[in-house]
Amino acid sequence: MRPDNRPADALRAVHFELDAAPYAEGSCLAVFGNTRVLCAASVEETTPPWLRGRGQGWVTAEYAMLPRATHQRTRREVTSGKPSGRTQEIQRLIGRSLRAVVDLKALGERQIIIDCDVLQADGGTRTAAITGAWIALKSACLYLMEEGLLKADPVTGQVAAVSAGIIKGEARLDLEYEEDSTADADANFVLTANGGVVEIQATAETDPMKPEEFDALFALARKGIGELAVLQNEALKARR
Amino acid sequence: MRPDNRPADALRAVHFELDAAPYAEGSCLAVFGNTRVLCAASVEETTPPWLRGRGQGWVTAEYAMLPRATHQRTRREVTSGKPSGRTQEIQRLIGRSLRAVVDLKALGERQIIIDCDVLQADGGTRTAAITGAWIALKSACLYLMEEGLLKADPVTGQVAAVSAGIIKGEARLDLEYEEDSTADADANFVLTANGGVVEIQATAETDPMKPEEFDALFALARKGIGELAVLQNEALKARR
Amino acid sequence: MRPDNRPADALRAVHFELDAAPYAEGSCLAVFGNTRVLCAASVEETTPPWLRGRGQGWVTAEYAMLPRATHQRTRREVTSGKPSGRTQEIQRLIGRSLRAVVDLKALGERQIIIDCDVLQADGGTRTAAITGAWIALKSACLYLMEEGLLKADPVTGQVAAVSAGIIKGEARLDLEYEEDSTADADANFVLTANGGVVEIQATAETDPMKPEEFDALFALARKGIGELAVLQNEALKARR
Amino acid sequence: MRPDNRPADALRAVHFELDAAPYAEGSCLAVFGNTRVLCAASVEETTPPWLRGRGQGWVTAEYAMLPRATHQRTRREVTSGKPSGRTQEIQRLIGRSLRAVVDLKALGERQIIIDCDVLQADGGTRTAAITGAWIALKSACLYLMEEGLLKADPVTGQVAAVSAGIIKGEARLDLEYEEDSTADADANFVLTANGGVVEIQATAETDPMKPEEFDALFALARKGIGELAVLQNEALKARR
Amino acid sequence: MRPDNRPADALRAVHFELDAAPYAEGSCLAVFGNTRVLCAASVEETTPPWLRGRGQGWVTAEYAMLPRATHQRTRREVTSGKPSGRTQEIQRLIGRSLRAVVDLKALGERQIIIDCDVLQADGGTRTAAITGAWIALKSACLYLMEEGLLKADPVTGQVAAVSAGIIKGEARLDLEYEEDSTADADANFVLTANGGVVEIQATAETDPMKPEEFDALFALARKGIGELAVLQNEALKARR
Amino acid sequence: MRPDNRPADALRAVHFELDAAPYAEGSCLAVFGNTRVLCAASVEETTPPWLRGRGQGWVTAEYAMLPRATHQRTRREVTSGKPSGRTQEIQRLIGRSLRAVVDLKALGERQIIIDCDVLQADGGTRTAAITGAWIALKSACLYLMEEGLLKADPVTGQVAAVSAGIIKGEARLDLEYEEDSTADADANFVLTANGGVVEIQATAETDPMKPEEFDALFALARKGIGELAVLQNEALKARR
Repeated sequence: MRPDNRPADALRAVHFELDAAPYAEGSCLAVFGNTRVLCAASVEETTPPWLRGRGQGWVTAEYAMLPRATHQRTRREVTSGKPSGRTQEIQRLIGRSLRAVVDLKALGERQIIIDCDVLQADGGTRTAAITGAWIALKSACLYLMEEGLLKADPVTGQVAAVSAGIIKGEARLDLEYEEDSTADADANFVLTANGGVVEIQATAETDPMKPEEFDALFALARKGIGELAVLQNEALKARR
Repeated sequence: MRPDNRPADALRAVHFELDAAPYAEGSCLAVFGNTRVLCAASVEETTPPWLRGRGQGWVTAEYAMLPRATHQRTRREVTSGKPSGRTQEIQRLIGRSLRAVVDLKALGERQIIIDCDVLQADGGTRTAAITGAWIALKSACLYLMEEGLLKADPVTGQVAAVSAGIIKGEARLDLEYEEDSTADADANFVLTANGGVVEIQATAETDPMKPEEFDALFALARKGIGELAVLQNEALKARR
Repeated sequence: MRPDNRPADALRAVHFELDAAPYAEGSCLAVFGNTRVLCAASVEETTPPWLRGRGQGWVTAEYAMLPRATHQRTRREVTSGKPSGRTQEIQRLIGRSLRAVVDLKALGERQIIIDCDVLQADGGTRTAAITGAWIALKSACLYLMEEGLLKADPVTGQVAAVSAGIIKGEARLDLEYEEDSTADADANFVLTANGGVVEIQATAETDPMKPEEFDALFALARKGIGELAVLQNEALKARR
Repeated sequence: MRPDNRPADALRAVHFELDAAPYAEGSCLAVFGNTRVLCAASVEETTPPWLRGRGQGWVTAEYAMLPRATHQRTRREVTSGKPSGRTQEIQRLIGRSLRAVVDLKALGERQIIIDCDVLQADGGTRTAAITGAWIALKSACLYLMEEGLLKADPVTGQVAAVSAGIIKGEARLDLEYEEDSTADADANFVLTANGGVVEIQATAETDPMKPEEFDALFALARKGIGELAVLQNEALKARR
Repeated sequence: MRPDNRPADALRAVHFELDAAPYAEGSCLAVFGNTRVLCAASVEETTPPWLRGRGQGWVTAEYAMLPRATHQRTRREVTSGKPSGRTQEIQRLIGRSLRAVVDLKALGERQIIIDCDVLQADGGTRTAAITGAWIALKSACLYLMEEGLLKADPVTGQVAAVSAGIIKGEARLDLEYEEDSTADADANFVLTANGGVVEIQATAETDPMKPEEFDALFALARKGIGELAVLQNEALKARR
Repeated sequence: MRPDNRPADALRAVHFELDAAPYAEGSCLAVFGNTRVLCAASVEETTPPWLRGRGQGWVTAEYAMLPRATHQRTRREVTSGKPSGRTQEIQRLIGRSLRAVVDLKALGERQIIIDCDVLQADGGTRTAAITGAWIALKSACLYLMEEGLLKADPVTGQVAAVSAGIIKGEARLDLEYEEDSTADADANFVLTANGGVVEIQATAETDPMKPEEFDALFALARKGIGELAVLQNEALKARR
């Protein structure tokens, strides 16, 4: 049995609260069970130096956790002077995932930064961040169109993410922290609403995984992403 | 007239949401108008190295803002590798303010860290942080007593903080951002519920302030702190 | 009795040595008893990037202590890679205090940096730094006028600073280190020669301070600043 | 046609030179075409602080490139004061991949660090590093057994890595730089000699990838890993 | 007797392998016994900011060691966030030594960076680096002339370097690590092929050295540099 | 003619002011013309971690310049987060020079740190620092003997330093800034009072130097060091 009695193929209770960061051009609080991530999209009318003059824009992400998002307090990264390897890996993943569904030429010479700040962490923060970040990004682009700053929507696809893992031989969808920390293997899938593969990251924690176990995780993820895509679209209807 | 039509001596709408960071030993979301600060107290059963073996505890604070707490996005401090001077000043102020009302011997050889993270910033974030941090600290100490880890409450007093400033010759209480940025002078007062002075920081922005103007700000602050102390106590009744 | 038998309302022996850093446009060694701070004003014909093109200048300060200014050697801040929170607080305070008496438009698009380096520390280094920095700044502006680079003096007021504190219930002026480390409360006052308030920073170390105790400190400070202002003017007569 | 006329399912010319870093306990120069990575295993008779007293060892990796390993000179990471996000991602990947085939209890309270330094980079440096690092690790463990420091071999499996990607609709094995930079999607596979999945990292660069494209890459990788495993074993026969 | 039975005035077996970093404009692997340093010259068509618009170029060097170049593993400098004092001293020395034999005006507004990476360290890495760096630099300038980017060779002299030291009262040339660590005094000489002094750095490790001992070291160095200059010229004949 | 009409073989006006940093165990203000360096020796009853338990002490030095020691203001090194290469080179040189005349076993398990802070810089700051640092070190050791903490003086020799250089073909002793910046070659000599060589660092700025030019500099240095040694001994007579 899972900690909260969910079936192996079920998502946690998922909820997206639109405009949770009211000063941002687009924002969303992504809630997956006890995991809560505030995603805020900021539009800047400039691009990074290495991209200037190329007639295209950029989408990037930053990720952090509040120190007491976790059961035990986590030291602030500013204290050690730099983001950890884990943090950099996650924010690079979020950025790549979003850029895979954005037409950077259509965005024009501007940058959208998605800040993903974890208020509470119970496993799956990176997948919640990606799923919420897409909503914030989409909302910011709708805003740019409403303001007349963009004529067409540069968001060319819909992306969501979910984890899956093998616990005691069982393939389970959307792991919470207690499951994640005891999984034999786990994987994060970033897929489009219509099944395209954007990113797959699978890791065997202790022993290598059998290929058919990997296939089972992939199948669970496709089911979960389908459900998340519906919820993303519903959430966007609540825009201010 | 003030931006929100408040009288000059009135606080903004103030609200404290207990246990807003559920994994923390004590926590509180402090809301002053559009300013929202999440204050989370973490108890650690160890003290900083320089204090070990002295038979006393420590209380300290850390302060940060989410990048999109502000109207314009603010760069994360981890990006520049260190907290800014402003951040350090504020977290030192919060720590000193709390320690003035804690019996560190009675706390025993443990440390309480209060994380104050600004989710939304509309002026007065440091005074909201102090006022909320006291609630989180008090709540954590009540928890320690309930758990039998402390016999007596080490919190010896009640502390709150508020700003006041001179805008176009008028002394006003609890400035919001629009007022703060145009004030001729402003001051932050950290006082106890019974009127003791814990910290005063007064700054003339452009021209020096007359002594009687300073006295007017001090009087406003005493009024405001009295009201905040009542709200702090009411909030604590909602503890889990 | 005070360590050096001074009356409670007396300054230490105060002396300002003009042009102690001969390569600087203005400089002064500020001596308060055993506290010695070298203040050197450097004029740069450029302003910080964020201020360019605004038709105004800037005044800022940096503060540091030689490692063996103190009874026990203090580690250099470069060793830990950044100025401490205390250092940043002090240099921000010095900068704000000076800017409150400078017409930045009249200064033109140039910057004056006041370096305050503590050669010997026996309490009150920040107030000695402010008091000496004003002399260095004033001297540099006189130099700019003599050189024909400025037509009118941008220094619009005279500022000095002094500490005061409560030791065993007694309010005392201009604390030396031995007093400072045992004070129940202490405050730093930055006032103009004619009594205007530029900065007040009051801190209760252990127990909150009574409002009337704060008033007593303020009164002592006004007396002390009056005396310092006379000494500042005398010192400036010794310019090269 | 591929740049070097290889069939789509062929590895580049692969060669492993044993003991290329003669002071190391185990080492190997891994050559994949023009990509050359020096892998050196250092045995330290201590473990990281967070692991002490747990009766187990640790295996970790560090990765770097010489500045002129690349066609254009790359700035040293020490210049910016920290390893880049890419570097951290790669060294975390190498470490995880090796630990998946090591019995850390059997290793005892010691650490093996594998330094992977890229002397020349023509695509696939991370997969060459993993494949060579396994040889260096295995060689160091054989040395520890020969020296009588270990009774049984803690290396429980054989791991190798290879990339594959979609270029103009064609699935190709072991991409070189020119192919890598124009691939529509690419993936790195870390598999065991008997087909177990250790890590999969798949990324769509521009457009999402079809699931069947991912499957084609996986199949190529299995073929390539089989060939690499044979070469690894042959190389180990040349040990001093 | 010396560790490898060399006479006191003999160099170790010295060898230079041209074009060892094939992507660089000029490169050389300098081998002095068991010391191996890869020197790669990179030409950049820009100069450092402080030199721009002066109609001249720049030559600079960077130096590093692979972690397992040494008998015991050495921590990477990126881990501590900055190059060590020793590293900075060495790279400044290499840069000055090369610039002494380059006409920077003739080089034009471009920069040549020589990366000296120690693959294996057995004493004398800095002198091997200088000697090899000159070959890489010369080769890069020949390349620039062949490509028509330079009309005349900006390299105005030939420079090489060697160490010498006093071990148990005997003056010895070209110390290896075992000798270096027990020397009473040692010196590094950077001389031109025709005997000009570019740099001398002599250090007494324990007791001061007699002037006649210094003279003996200087004489050995002149002999050694003469031999190295011949080998440098022979090596350059192998250019691609 | 030299800028101040000195003969080519003459030192500047040299003066040592004992006990200029009164809280230090030994100190000295070293004045060479307009160059002024405050040298303060701090005794710490502990040694660096890597030396503990070896039954010996350590002597080290730190060097810095006040920002306005120079004609143009120099940025503080703490601003860039680390000491510059030049600073590290100088402080390593001072430390080595002093250790060459100290019996570290006789010093016992304690450390003496000599802080050399340049108050005013007109060339030759590193040689003034070494010469003054020896006085501060000697004075601190005399203090340790007077206090009964040491039975015998661990200072086994007397060391001083001076620069010399070739300007327009003339060998000159003790260069001031104006000469230093136009010298064709210059050298720093650290010698003992009885002529022993502790350190020599000779550098040709533009063209290589002839061996006989180097010999002329060496001869000048021996003359200058003789005079400095007399002044050092006279200065020590003024100890408190």
